Amino acid sequence: MAKTMKALMKKKSAVGASLEEVPLPKIKNGEVMVKVKAAAICGTDGHIYSWDRWAESRIKPPLIFGHEFCGEIVEVGSEVKDLKVGTKVSAEGHFICGKCFFCRTGQGHICQDVEIIGVDTDGCFAEYVRVPAENIWVMDPSIPEEIAAIQDPVGNAVHAALIDEIVGNNVLITGCGPIGLAAVAICRFAGARKIFATDVNQYRLDLARKLGADFAYNAVETDLVKEVLKETHGLGADVFLEMAGKEKAINDGFKALRKGGWISLLGITDGNVSLDINDGLVFKGAKLYGINGRLMYDTWYKMEALLLSGLDLKPLVTHSFSFEEFEKAFDLVLSGSCGKVILYP
Amino acid sequence: MAKTMKALMKKKSAVGASLEEVPLPKIKNGEVMVKVKAAAICGTDGHIYSWDRWAESRIKPPLIFGHEFCGEIVEVGSEVKDLKVGTKVSAEGHFICGKCFFCRTGQGHICQDVEIIGVDTDGCFAEYVRVPAENIWVMDPSIPEEIAAIQDPVGNAVHAALIDEIVGNNVLITGCGPIGLAAVAICRFAGARKIFATDVNQYRLDLARKLGADFAYNAVETDLVKEVLKETHGLGADVFLEMAGKEKAINDGFKALRKGGWISLLGITDGNVSLDINDGLVFKGAKLYGINGRLMYDTWYKMEALLLSGLDLKPLVTHSFSFEEFEKAFDLVLSGSCGKVILYP
Amino acid sequence: MAKTMKALMKKKSAVGASLEEVPLPKIKNGEVMVKVKAAAICGTDGHIYSWDRWAESRIKPPLIFGHEFCGEIVEVGSEVKDLKVGTKVSAEGHFICGKCFFCRTGQGHICQDVEIIGVDTDGCFAEYVRVPAENIWVMDPSIPEEIAAIQDPVGNAVHAALIDEIVGNNVLITGCGPIGLAAVAICRFAGARKIFATDVNQYRLDLARKLGADFAYNAVETDLVKEVLKETHGLGADVFLEMAGKEKAINDGFKALRKGGWISLLGITDGNVSLDINDGLVFKGAKLYGINGRLMYDTWYKMEALLLSGLDLKPLVTHSFSFEEFEKAFDLVLSGSCGKVILYP
Amino acid sequence: MAKTMKALMKKKSAVGASLEEVPLPKIKNGEVMVKVKAAAICGTDGHIYSWDRWAESRIKPPLIFGHEFCGEIVEVGSEVKDLKVGTKVSAEGHFICGKCFFCRTGQGHICQDVEIIGVDTDGCFAEYVRVPAENIWVMDPSIPEEIAAIQDPVGNAVHAALIDEIVGNNVLITGCGPIGLAAVAICRFAGARKIFATDVNQYRLDLARKLGADFAYNAVETDLVKEVLKETHGLGADVFLEMAGKEKAINDGFKALRKGGWISLLGITDGNVSLDINDGLVFKGAKLYGINGRLMYDTWYKMEALLLSGLDLKPLVTHSFSFEEFEKAFDLVLSGSCGKVILYP
Repeated sequence: MAKTMKALMKKKSAVGASLEEVPLPKIKNGEVMVKVKAAAICGTDGHIYSWDRWAESRIKPPLIFGHEFCGEIVEVGSEVKDLKVGTKVSAEGHFICGKCFFCRTGQGHICQDVEIIGVDTDGCFAEYVRVPAENIWVMDPSIPEEIAAIQDPVGNAVHAALIDEIVGNNVLITGCGPIGLAAVAICRFAGARKIFATDVNQYRLDLARKLGADFAYNAVETDLVKEVLKETHGLGADVFLEMAGKEKAINDGFKALRKGGWISLLGITDGNVSLDINDGLVFKGAKLYGINGRLMYDTWYKMEALLLSGLDLKPLVTHSFSFEEFEKAFDLVLSGSCGKVILYP
Repeated sequence: MAKTMKALMKKKSAVGASLEEVPLPKIKNGEVMVKVKAAAICGTDGHIYSWDRWAESRIKPPLIFGHEFCGEIVEVGSEVKDLKVGTKVSAEGHFICGKCFFCRTGQGHICQDVEIIGVDTDGCFAEYVRVPAENIWVMDPSIPEEIAAIQDPVGNAVHAALIDEIVGNNVLITGCGPIGLAAVAICRFAGARKIFATDVNQYRLDLARKLGADFAYNAVETDLVKEVLKETHGLGADVFLEMAGKEKAINDGFKALRKGGWISLLGITDGNVSLDINDGLVFKGAKLYGINGRLMYDTWYKMEALLLSGLDLKPLVTHSFSFEEFEKAFDLVLSGSCGKVILYP
Repeated sequence: MAKTMKALMKKKSAVGASLEEVPLPKIKNGEVMVKVKAAAICGTDGHIYSWDRWAESRIKPPLIFGHEFCGEIVEVGSEVKDLKVGTKVSAEGHFICGKCFFCRTGQGHICQDVEIIGVDTDGCFAEYVRVPAENIWVMDPSIPEEIAAIQDPVGNAVHAALIDEIVGNNVLITGCGPIGLAAVAICRFAGARKIFATDVNQYRLDLARKLGADFAYNAVETDLVKEVLKETHGLGADVFLEMAGKEKAINDGFKALRKGGWISLLGITDGNVSLDINDGLVFKGAKLYGINGRLMYDTWYKMEALLLSGLDLKPLVTHSFSFEEFEKAFDLVLSGSCGKVILYP
Repeated sequence: MAKTMKALMKKKSAVGASLEEVPLPKIKNGEVMVKVKAAAICGTDGHIYSWDRWAESRIKPPLIFGHEFCGEIVEVGSEVKDLKVGTKVSAEGHFICGKCFFCRTGQGHICQDVEIIGVDTDGCFAEYVRVPAENIWVMDPSIPEEIAAIQDPVGNAVHAALIDEIVGNNVLITGCGPIGLAAVAICRFAGARKIFATDVNQYRLDLARKLGADFAYNAVETDLVKEVLKETHGLGADVFLEMAGKEKAINDGFKALRKGGWISLLGITDGNVSLDINDGLVFKGAKLYGINGRLMYDTWYKMEALLLSGLDLKPLVTHSFSFEEFEKAFDLVLSGSCGKVILYP
């Protein structure tokens, strides 16, 4: 290994990022060093790049950001017994305490003392990244790198979509960002009846159709509620996966849901939202799940099973760039006219 | 039977009600006639009495209102085989179609073509009331009349509280109207850990304590979130039963809930409410149930089992009046300084 | 309508059946008359035909047997409001009381006072059959007759397979009779990982592969447990659908199941069976569901959704005969070398 | 600390045990040393003591046995950060690998590479015992020592009884060993309707009544099925907790269960058992849970909540002895005429 490496960094509290040459990290006894093969840009990385209010309040530069990736183990800490140099891996980016009520009851994904890679500690937009051994996910060799790199967001979609029954159900998915798009493919794979997807970006609506949506509506131009009711004998969708984080999407989804249906709420809204919960939730006898991250590691096992069984997410990865082209990559992500965007070191 | 009967009626679109002498109803072949022994006043009856916007839009006078009652069968329709004159009964007030998707899948409580007694058809504030045989609930003779008469709202509380795990859980109940108060007693009976109740009315807070609440907070004067966190090692309540229908109660409950906790939403709000669903539901990984009415008839069986096992709801029934005293009774109900109020014919 | 009709009857307590000319049934006010278009032979019909101990104890000749069918409504009782002559229909063959604890809690499939068509009352191996209106299932016109006729057993498979999670799970199905075969197709449609099927009949093992099984093992010649463990990294199958009713199949399935996995038990055994429940259920922390019939009518809605979404069951229907050829048809069914066998009037 | 300690040992492959003076154990970096305050005798310890076939095949002498205890931390390993000398603790006796599918999906209780204290490694029938830090359960100081010492079996009962709905349900518990007796108290606390308990030992039946059973039947002398049906309007018990491990108890419980009811299977049988699963499980549409140990650590949190909320298990602890009196203690345990028996160092 070299002594220095390329790393995409947020060096100061300002818009943008810079590609730097920095010393390699040093792993602790319980960690491994991973040589990054492919990294993917998350919406969160977009917030960090464009330095919005959330980023300003949360991120402490200097920081190497990025948390979606795959790579190969190149070094193993002294206490790590079950991992070897040369193994292809991805990683869960939530480092948990292991000692709180949540960690001790199989709910590590909502650990009360979590650290997130690329947000609280140096991340994967670099040639090398260090990761606690327990967070390593050994890859099945048949899974291609660009898919291995996006398991964090795909895992969110798996968690949101498969938390309750999909097979035979009509599903409304509001918001066709990468997680919404992955959810389309997952619901199709899991035997959904009709899949309705919405977005405001035509590129993403086309992708939604390609990934299996029966209907892809422009949320501004279409009367979503009317269309869903028309296609469901007036009953409404059995399932509503909210992945837009918009007040209108949520209220429309509430209206388009059938009585007794279920909802996964994953999208993050910009502050409080004004909701009709009487008609939307109470009178309907609806069931709603708030979705935070991925189950550790139930979701990872499930995701692997889906990928090995034929879930095809290749259309979801639409662009790739070298680290050096990061500005182009981020401009594209911020435009919204893309699926997942991969960065190669 | 006499040919006429006393009935408390909404005769025209205006505030108030009037006690009238009217002809007895005629039962259909599939119905039974019940001589009312005790009726109870619901918040909905308060809306009808005070003729608010909801009542004006929904109720078509002339109407005998009232939907909570018990009585004795005095006449049986020609097609009714399994019910007999003299049997003590109560009744589910939702008359359902039996043919829609919901009715055919055990979800009659959200039937798409429901009629509600005392709202859509003549109700129980009368000496006699006719009821479809399938809606009759035969009473165990050991259950006292004033409890038999309030099974509709108690059933709502059973449905809301027992839809998920209570035993060993810390429970926050916002709103100590009769349903909230019944929920306090039910959670205590079901082995809850600490029960936190809130209201703005001191009379009801005292009742909450009497029915089993460990803590009864004035929602205006107390920092509810702080108190609940203090009493739960900083984790928050495991369960949040929302029975106030107030924006502040909902947002406070969201904050006071622990991550991974569950919520029943039963209270009806006055229009849209502005909610923090990011911190309240999504990041928490919370589960939420919208609660509409009572399961037909799972809830009735469960309620009977609780009552026969020792669930003591007597403190919940605080006042009783004759039909002739209806004005006093409604004034009291509208003041909020009461539990359940019974009307006797 | 003619005044008489052809009917396949068990006229006396003996092996076999006879095709008779009998008077048309007369419908009651709440019933409809269905002209049978296609009927299918169930294993139960095989028992009745070959007059085994069970049949002798349960069936009271003379009886028209048969309970799987589709047809067209040709007459409607005076009290039936929502069904019309000319509508294509199938029917649930369990006529339930509507009044017991089970019927009143959405569990009509285990009604304590059920009558079964073709077992307790005249069935569908006839040109006409009368059916209570509430048991009628209106067919989507796009579903072909031979599929419409087999919804009873397919419904059993839907009930057994979709009672818990299939997507991404390795599934073992012991017994490839028609229900087991339908379960193979349903699990494949619902996104199962690997599907392992077993039987002793090569014809059925071939059918299992055609319907989507990854592995189809001869239960006598193969070491099932070893094979399943080999294909599942030594963990075992996540799901075990027991449809053979054989002691060895059950114990093998217990062994082949992973810890924490789930089981549907649908096959009926010939008397008591000797089971290793310590290793098979207790130490594994397994979950087991006894499966009786189909949910009324949740399963029917789910089945329709699957069929309309592309579940392809055509390979399951392997043979068809005229009523006149009934002896050939029953010989074939009793041989086991077939999928579903259809009888046409 | 002294350099040696008293320890009750199985020194060789033979009946009985001996009290020895042995060197203190040495803790590893991730472990703590606990000074034992009270230990309890489990049925498993009885098997080890009387050296039956199971014990002979599993136990490798010399071994200090015993796995139920409480005590005080007297030494803390170098890597243990969150535990302190002087803290009162109990411990989960299953030491798990943390790396298998089960451990990584919140199912550590069925870890595929588990070690059990007092069975695979030296146990708690000694003055001191070493325990991995992650297995330590810090006690609430209000819980008395003799209750703190029996959380292992009480946890089994919590796991078995609260895995599904108890409140308002009629519960049959076959087998009134300590776990069955604890289950009686837990079901009573959780709002069960009628509790039926069975055993063959009168002492234990009396204890069952004391802990909250409405009915305590001698399993040999009483027609259990008839009694339960009589007390449940002919429906049968809603819940069946099997804690006897006897073929007859299981088949009787199957018969006494109502259709659609649920079962926890915890008792271990002596080899295969001959069961009527047709009537017992399949036709009934029953749900069954195999119960292995306690959830780590969901069950511990739940148990603590119950104990702090008033679950009174004091009647369950019936006898106590000094280490020196171990022969008397084991004779008593093997006689069955006791609840929990405590050994004090």
